[in-house]
Amino acid sequence: PTGHHQQCSSEKIKSAALSFLPILTWLPSYPIKEYLFGDIVSGLSTGVMQLPQGLAYAMLAAVPPVYGLYASFYPVVLYTFFGTSKHVSIGTFAVISLMIGGVVVREAPDSMFMLQANGTNSSVPSLIDTEARDARRVHLAVALTSLVGINQLLLGLLRFGFVAIYLTEPLVRGFTTAASVHVFVSQLKYLFCVKTRRFSGPLSVVYSLIAVLKDITSTNITALILGLTCIVFLYGVKDVNERFKAKLPLPIPGEIIVIVSTGVSYGMSLFENYQVDIVGTIPSGLLLPAAPDFSVLPNLVTDSIAIAIVGFSMDISLAKIFALKYGYSVDGNQELIALGLCNFIGSFFHTFAVTCSMSRSLVQESTGGKTQIAGFLASLVVLLVVVAIGFIFQPLPQTVLAAIIMVNLVGMFKQMRDIPLLWKTSKLELAIWLVAFVSSVLLGLDYGLLVSIGFAIVTVIYRTQSPKSMILGHIPNTGMYCDVDEYQESIECTGIKIFHLNASIYFANSDLYINTLKQKVRYDVLYLTLKKHTVVRLVLLDVQGNGQVTESQTESDSEETHFLRTLCAVHSIILDFTPVNFIDSVGAKAIKSVIKEYAAVDVHVFIAGCSRTLLDELRTLLFFSGPVTPDIVFPTVHDAVLHCQHRRPRPSSTVV
Amino acid sequence: PTGHHQQCSSEKIKSAALSFLPILTWLPSYPIKEYLFGDIVSGLSTGVMQLPQGLAYAMLAAVPPVYGLYASFYPVVLYTFFGTSKHVSIGTFAVISLMIGGVVVREAPDSMFMLQANGTNSSVPSLIDTEARDARRVHLAVALTSLVGINQLLLGLLRFGFVAIYLTEPLVRGFTTAASVHVFVSQLKYLFCVKTRRFSGPLSVVYSLIAVLKDITSTNITALILGLTCIVFLYGVKDVNERFKAKLPLPIPGEIIVIVSTGVSYGMSLFENYQVDIVGTIPSGLLLPAAPDFSVLPNLVTDSIAIAIVGFSMDISLAKIFALKYGYSVDGNQELIALGLCNFIGSFFHTFAVTCSMSRSLVQESTGGKTQIAGFLASLVVLLVVVAIGFIFQPLPQTVLAAIIMVNLVGMFKQMRDIPLLWKTSKLELAIWLVAFVSSVLLGLDYGLLVSIGFAIVTVIYRTQSPKSMILGHIPNTGMYCDVDEYQESIECTGIKIFHLNASIYFANSDLYINTLKQKVRYDVLYLTLKKHTVVRLVLLDVQGNGQVTESQTESDSEETHFLRTLCAVHSIILDFTPVNFIDSVGAKAIKSVIKEYAAVDVHVFIAGCSRTLLDELRTLLFFSGPVTPDIVFPTVHDAVLHCQHRRPRPSSTVV
Repeated sequence: PTGHHQQCSSEKIKSAALSFLPILTWLPSYPIKEYLFGDIVSGLSTGVMQLPQGLAYAMLAAVPPVYGLYASFYPVVLYTFFGTSKHVSIGTFAVISLMIGGVVVREAPDSMFMLQANGTNSSVPSLIDTEARDARRVHLAVALTSLVGINQLLLGLLRFGFVAIYLTEPLVRGFTTAASVHVFVSQLKYLFCVKTRRFSGPLSVVYSLIAVLKDITSTNITALILGLTCIVFLYGVKDVNERFKAKLPLPIPGEIIVIVSTGVSYGMSLFENYQVDIVGTIPSGLLLPAAPDFSVLPNLVTDSIAIAIVGFSMDISLAKIFALKYGYSVDGNQELIALGLCNFIGSFFHTFAVTCSMSRSLVQESTGGKTQIAGFLASLVVLLVVVAIGFIFQPLPQTVLAAIIMVNLVGMFKQMRDIPLLWKTSKLELAIWLVAFVSSVLLGLDYGLLVSIGFAIVTVIYRTQSPKSMILGHIPNTGMYCDVDEYQESIECTGIKIFHLNASIYFANSDLYINTLKQKVRYDVLYLTLKKHTVVRLVLLDVQGNGQVTESQTESDSEETHFLRTLCAVHSIILDFTPVNFIDSVGAKAIKSVIKEYAAVDVHVFIAGCSRTLLDELRTLLFFSGPVTPDIVFPTVHDAVLHCQHRRPRPSSTVV
Repeated sequence: PTGHHQQCSSEKIKSAALSFLPILTWLPSYPIKEYLFGDIVSGLSTGVMQLPQGLAYAMLAAVPPVYGLYASFYPVVLYTFFGTSKHVSIGTFAVISLMIGGVVVREAPDSMFMLQANGTNSSVPSLIDTEARDARRVHLAVALTSLVGINQLLLGLLRFGFVAIYLTEPLVRGFTTAASVHVFVSQLKYLFCVKTRRFSGPLSVVYSLIAVLKDITSTNITALILGLTCIVFLYGVKDVNERFKAKLPLPIPGEIIVIVSTGVSYGMSLFENYQVDIVGTIPSGLLLPAAPDFSVLPNLVTDSIAIAIVGFSMDISLAKIFALKYGYSVDGNQELIALGLCNFIGSFFHTFAVTCSMSRSLVQESTGGKTQIAGFLASLVVLLVVVAIGFIFQPLPQTVLAAIIMVNLVGMFKQMRDIPLLWKTSKLELAIWLVAFVSSVLLGLDYGLLVSIGFAIVTVIYRTQSPKSMILGHIPNTGMYCDVDEYQESIECTGIKIFHLNASIYFANSDLYINTLKQKVRYDVLYLTLKKHTVVRLVLLDVQGNGQVTESQTESDSEETHFLRTLCAVHSIILDFTPVNFIDSVGAKAIKSVIKEYAAVDVHVFIAGCSRTLLDELRTLLFFSGPVTPDIVFPTVHDAVLHCQHRRPRPSSTVV
C-alpha cells in the first residue's frame, strides 16, 4: 500500500503541475499537420487586429499608445502557457481599459499638472505638463494592473472561480451594453477632435456628453470627416464579412484603414496643417522590467477588485461559449490563475490590465485558430511592430482609432435587441438586464456591477416568494394528485384538503405559506375564535381588518352558515412537501404552530412527500416534539390520503 | 345591482375606517366587568415603569429627562386609538433611544457649544453651554422623530408591512443582543459617574469603553456604590418575581427604588456633598405644540429610515408573539401606520421616537392587561407626574437610572443562550445570529442592520446552491423511486439513470446542476470526446485538468474499460423535476444544451414530475424547439421509466 500511496501522491503532483501549466497537456501532442496552418493564418489576422486595438485602448486607459502594444504582447505570451481556452484572444479590451482610465484620471487629473494657473483668463487654456502627467498615469495603471493580477491569482488559488455564476447572462449583457455606452461617449471627443476634460465616477457619461456638446463648435472638421469616412468604411467591411461569411476564405481585414490613413496623415501633414490630433511618439524597442510602484496601492484596492471580476467574467463567459462549441472544457479557477499571472507578471513589463476581447476572439476562431498557438503568433506580430516599425504609426490620427473602437462596439450595441426578446420570455430577467444597464451607465461600471449583482440575488428571493399555491385533487384510478382548478378530472377527497405551494419554507416566506394555506383551506382565525364563543360580528370585522378573508365580507347570512358548515366538515389537511427543498427554524416553527392551531379544533395535519434531507433538517430543528410526531409524515400524498380515509373520522366539533 | 353596488362601496368605506381606527372595532363591545379590573392594575403597573424608563432613556437619547416623560405620554395615548396589538406597551425603548442619541450627538456634539477654548490647558475642562446644546439636541431629536413617523406612515400606506419578514428571528435576536451591548456600554459612564464624551458611528462601542476605562480613576465612589446597590436590589426583585411568579398576585415593583433613592439623594444632598450627578431640572406642565424644525432634515434621512425599520420590527415581532398566544391577529401595515402616527403627531408635542419595550410589555401582559385601555391608563399615570409632581424626581441620581437600564437588559443578554442552541439546530442560522451581533456591535446599529439583512438574504442563495443530489432507484412493486445510496430496497433500472437534485435551476446553480448530473451519471466529456476518435490519454488528462472525473485518475486500464462499458450501456437519463420550483433562461439553456449533448451520443434525456407552472415557464423561455420537444416530459418518474423500457433500446454506439 505504501508504494501505491507514493504512486498516488506523485501522480497528484503531476496532475497539479499539469493543471497549473495546461500547455504541458496539449503541446506534446500538438497535431502539426492538422492544426499549424490554421493557427498561423489565425495568428496573423489576430495580430493585425491587436495593433490598432492596442493603440486605441491605450487612449481609453489614459496612457501613451505604446503601452497598448506592450499590453498586446507580454500577457498574450503568458496566456499561451497558463490558459485553458483554445480560442479566446487575450489582450487589451475596451471595458477594462476604460475602467483603468477612469481610475488613473481620478488619481492623476490634469489639474495636478498645470504649469501655469490661468484661472481668471479662461480663454487661454492653461498648459499641462503632459510628460509628468503621462509618467504618473503609467505608474498608476501599472500598479493597478499588478493589484488586479494579485486579486485574480488569489481568487484562483482559493478556488473562487465559481463567483462567475452570479454573473448571470442578462446581467453580463446589460453590463457590457452599458460599458459600450461609456466607451462610445468617451470616444466622441476624439472623433470630433475637441478638447474636454475626462470625467469619472457616477454620472460621468452625462458630464462627458454635456462637455462634448458644449464644445461642439470647436470641432475639427477635417478630423470629423476622416473619422466618419473610417466608420463608414469599417462598418461596410464588417457588413460584407458577415454577409459573405460562407464565400470568403478569410474575413477582409478592415484594419488596413490604419495603414491608409497613416499614409494620408503623413502625406498631407494633417497634424501640422489641419491640427488633427495624432498618435504621436511611439518609441521603438521594449522597456526594461521594473517593479510597480506599490506606494499608490491603498487608493486602488476597491477599483482593482471590480476590474479583476469584470475581466474574469468577460473571459470565462466567452471561453465557455467556445468550449461548448468545440467540446472541450475550461477551468474557471485555472482561468483566474492565468489571467492573474498575465496581469501580475505583465505589470512588471509596464502593461495595463487585459482580458479577452470579443471582437478579436471571434476573428481568431473564424480564421481557423485551433489552439493557444494562434494567440502566441499574434503576439509575435505585435512584438515585431514594437521593436522594429512602431514609429511608422506616429502620424496615425486619433480620430481613426476612435472610429475603429466605435465600429467594434456595434456588436455590443446589438445586445439592445435582448430587450424585446426578454420582454416575451422573462420579465424578471429583463429587469436584471435593465437594472444592470441603467445602473452601470449612470453609476459607473464598478458601482453598477455591485448594484446589479445585488439585484440579481434579490430576484431569486423574489422568485421563492412568489410561488403558486393549489389544492390538489385525486385523479381517479391513479395515485396522482393534481390542481383541482387546472384539471377537471381531479376530485377533492371528502373532508381532506391537500395543500401544495411550490416553494421552500424559510423566514422570508413562512408567513406566506401559512396565510395561503389558511386562505386556501378557508379555515381561518374566524373559526378558531368562533370556538371561543365570541360574538360573530366582532370576529368578522377583525378578519376584515386583517385583510385575509375579505371574500366573506359581503356574504349573506345563509352563505356564512354554509361556509362554516364546509369548514367544519374538513377533518384532515395534507401538506404536500414535495416542492419543499429546505426549511429553516422560522419555517419549522410556523408549520408546527399551524399544526397545533388546527389540532386545537380537531383537524389533523399530515405532511407528505417529505424528502429524506428535509426530514433530517426537521429533526435537527427539533420539529418533532409534543403533539407533532414523526407519525404525521408520509412518503407520498396518496399514502397520506389512504391513512386519513381509513382513520375513523372523529365526530364533528361541538359548535352550532 | 346598483343598490347592491352602493351597499358594497359604503361597506368598503366602513371597513377601511375600521381598519384605520381599530379602536372602533373593540371599544364598543368592551366587556367592562371582565376586562376593566385587569386593565386598571396592569395600567398602573406599566405606568410606574414608564416613569423611570422615560427618564433613563431620555439620557440615552441625549435630551433632558422631561422629554422622556413626554414620549411616555402622547404616543401611548395615540396608540390606544390606532394600534392593533392589545398587549404591547408603546413608549420609550432603549435601542431606539440610543440610535436617536447617536444621531443627535453626531449632529450637535459638545464641541459645537464650547464657551471658551482651552485647547492648551487640558486639565481644566472647557465649559459647555449646556442650555444651547440641549435645546439644539431636542430640536434634532424631534425633527428626526417626525421623519421616522413619516417613514413609517408611508411604508404603512404603501402596504410595506411585509418587509418585516426579512427580519428573521436569529437576525432580530442577534441584533437586539448587540443593541444591549451598546446600551450597556453607554451606561457605564453614568454608573461610574465619569465624564467622557459620547461616540457614534462604527467602533463607537470600543471607543466608549476605552474612554471610560481611561477615566476610571476619576470614578465617583458614592455614585458607584449607590448604582451597584440598586443593581443588586433590582436584580434580586426580578429574580424573586420570576421564581414566585405563580404565588405572587402582582410582581413586586422594583421601581420603588427610584422613590427611595430620590429620598436618600435629597436627604443626604448627594449632588452638593458628593458630586453625584442627578437628573436635575424637571419643569412641571406640558409644552405648547410646535412644528418640528424641518431645516435639519436632509442630514437625518438615512438615520430615520434605519430607526423606522428597527422600531417597527421590534413592535411587530413582540405583537405577533402576543397575538399568537391570545389568538387574535395583528396587521403589520396598520401597526406601521399606528407607529407612524405616534411618532409624527408626537413630534409636534416634543417627543422622541418610540416603539414597544419588551420589559414593559411583559409586565403589562403578566399583570392582567387585556386591551389597549391598559396602555392608556399607564399614560395617565405619566401625565399626572408631568403636570403635578415631576419636580420631586429632580434629586434622583443618574447612576440609579443607569442601574435600572442595565438590569432591564438582563433579558436581552440571556439571548446569548441562542448560540449553543443554534449550534445544535442550524449552523446557518447561527451564522446569521453571529453576523447580526458582531456587525451591529462593531459597525453600529444602522450599518449592522443593513449588513445582517444582506447576509440573511445571501444565506437563502447559499441554501439553493447546496442541494443534495441522488440517483433514484425503483422500489419493487410500487411506483416509488428512492435514493439508491440510502434505501437498500431501491434498484436502479438497467440502462436508465434517474437524477434528482433538490433545488430550482437558475443562474447561480445551473452549472452545479449540470456538473452534478454528469458526475452522478458518470458520463462525462470523456465519452463525448472518445466518440470523436481522439487519443484516450489526452482526453484523460484534459478531464483531470477540469477536475470533474478525478476518480478515474488512478484507475487501471481494465477498470477504465469496464467504466466505459457501463457508460455505453446507459441509453436514457430521466431528470426528476419534482423539486424544481422555478427555472430561468440560464437554467433552461443549460438543460437544453445537456439534452443536445447527450442526444449526440444517442442517450435520450427525459423530464419527469414537471409541475404545470414550470412547464409554462419552460414554454415562455422557448425551451421546446429543435430536438427538444414536449414529448420528453412525463408527469411522474414512473411514467418516464415505463416509456424508456418499452422503447426498443437502440443498438449500443459504435465505439470500441
